[in-house]
Amino acid sequence: MTVPVAPIGVFDSGVGGLTVLRALRAALPQADFVYLGDTARLPYGTKSAATVARYSLQCAAALRARGIGCLVVACNTASASALEALRAAYPDLPVVGVVEPGAAAAVGASRTRSIAVIATEGTIAGGAYQRAIQAHAADARVVARACPLFVALAEEGWTEGPVVEAIARRYFEGMFEGPRPPDTLVLGCTHFPALAGAIAAALPAAVRVVDSAATTAAAVAARIGAARAAHGRGTVRWLATDGAARFARIGSRFLGAGIVADEVEIVDL
Amino acid sequence: MTVPVAPIGVFDSGVGGLTVLRALRAALPQADFVYLGDTARLPYGTKSAATVARYSLQCAAALRARGIGCLVVACNTASASALEALRAAYPDLPVVGVVEPGAAAAVGASRTRSIAVIATEGTIAGGAYQRAIQAHAADARVVARACPLFVALAEEGWTEGPVVEAIARRYFEGMFEGPRPPDTLVLGCTHFPALAGAIAAALPAAVRVVDSAATTAAAVAARIGAARAAHGRGTVRWLATDGAARFARIGSRFLGAGIVADEVEIVDL
Repeated sequence: MTVPVAPIGVFDSGVGGLTVLRALRAALPQADFVYLGDTARLPYGTKSAATVARYSLQCAAALRARGIGCLVVACNTASASALEALRAAYPDLPVVGVVEPGAAAAVGASRTRSIAVIATEGTIAGGAYQRAIQAHAADARVVARACPLFVALAEEGWTEGPVVEAIARRYFEGMFEGPRPPDTLVLGCTHFPALAGAIAAALPAAVRVVDSAATTAAAVAARIGAARAAHGRGTVRWLATDGAARFARIGSRFLGAGIVADEVEIVDL
Repeated sequence: MTVPVAPIGVFDSGVGGLTVLRALRAALPQADFVYLGDTARLPYGTKSAATVARYSLQCAAALRARGIGCLVVACNTASASALEALRAAYPDLPVVGVVEPGAAAAVGASRTRSIAVIATEGTIAGGAYQRAIQAHAADARVVARACPLFVALAEEGWTEGPVVEAIARRYFEGMFEGPRPPDTLVLGCTHFPALAGAIAAALPAAVRVVDSAATTAAAVAARIGAARAAHGRGTVRWLATDGAARFARIGSRFLGAGIVADEVEIVDL
């Protein structure tokens, strides 16, 4: 008989973090998860760092109350603004964000050490990716740009075609030019992988695209031990702070699998 | 000596309602206002009706505590979901929303009684415009469509040009066709007037565009009495729930006048 293993808690401002959950389930198919989407208060990307930290602590408390043994911050904005506060509040709980794994993957992928980062306004303004990349490679050049419309496009399900590509080209104007142009682009928002095709179409051919979902999943597996996570039953418990039907409908696209609205528990933080 | 007149309270989920405040100030230049943008919790347009009503009651309480004598709900989503709850909570306070004036203006402008409405997901799903238009003209045909990307475009300041027009054309596909095509379009979200040029470029030439800002201002003037409002000093007090700098920067575009970040008081609802 095996001892039950505590589920892995995952939270995001809404549905974007489901791209991270998708990678986590692929890496740890037998682990159990509790996913919380703070849909009542999304987006986090335009809010101040102090507000995002406060909301993140409330999300963590709701997940902790459901017995999690590890916390994954599947939102770049929250990873950028709230990781220290979360670790201080739960010193016994492993807390893994998405910024550090994304930065490590970018440094690993880049040959020129010139790296572009696109993310929400909050993530870019906070400079967390810039710092995390330069912690790995002090000589790295980082070109950062906020692309908030990508979030709205992904939520609307407009993920490809000429309009999306035109928006991407406009955001990328001048980004990949100059004497030391970036050879790697980090998708620093969990919504952005949904637009990967249109983003790639708007990029110079040589640029490599990195997202943090797979590397975050690997970091979580390393942290909790893949052997321990193999004792679960592969379940997901769904929590959201508003709108079960919308969460299920849009979330299914990000997860790449169906979510049943009736199985989404609405919680008040 | 004149008795001081209570200021007019105006709230919105963020900066969109500033297009309504702009019309109010044009109609009532001597009135005093308190404007509250619930920027920590925007957007309201994707949230459930119950959540929007709860947030609206909290906004109203914050404004009431600052001595307002009239409440303008300058957010279509909140007008559609929270007006009854607000009137029940403050039976002595005149409460004016933007849906009813917008619907009245549309019925006045339409010759064919076939009217198109664009708004957020929440406003369209709740059916408030459809009901308000049909209350004025029972035989009216109403074609309603959610255009959530327009909100993101307006906040990003991308208000014109081929990309915005392409998005508008995609949203309007099929809307103005058929045996009884609409001859009037209601901009049922306070963000949308910012995109008026691009929206007009994507419309058939004969379609008239109606927004509720000016008609709401006229309704407020009628309700409180223009003579009474003439005793103020033409001031605005600014409140927001998050991000004074962002509120001032983006809000100035919607107001059509500068907002000073240092004059924005951050309130916790």
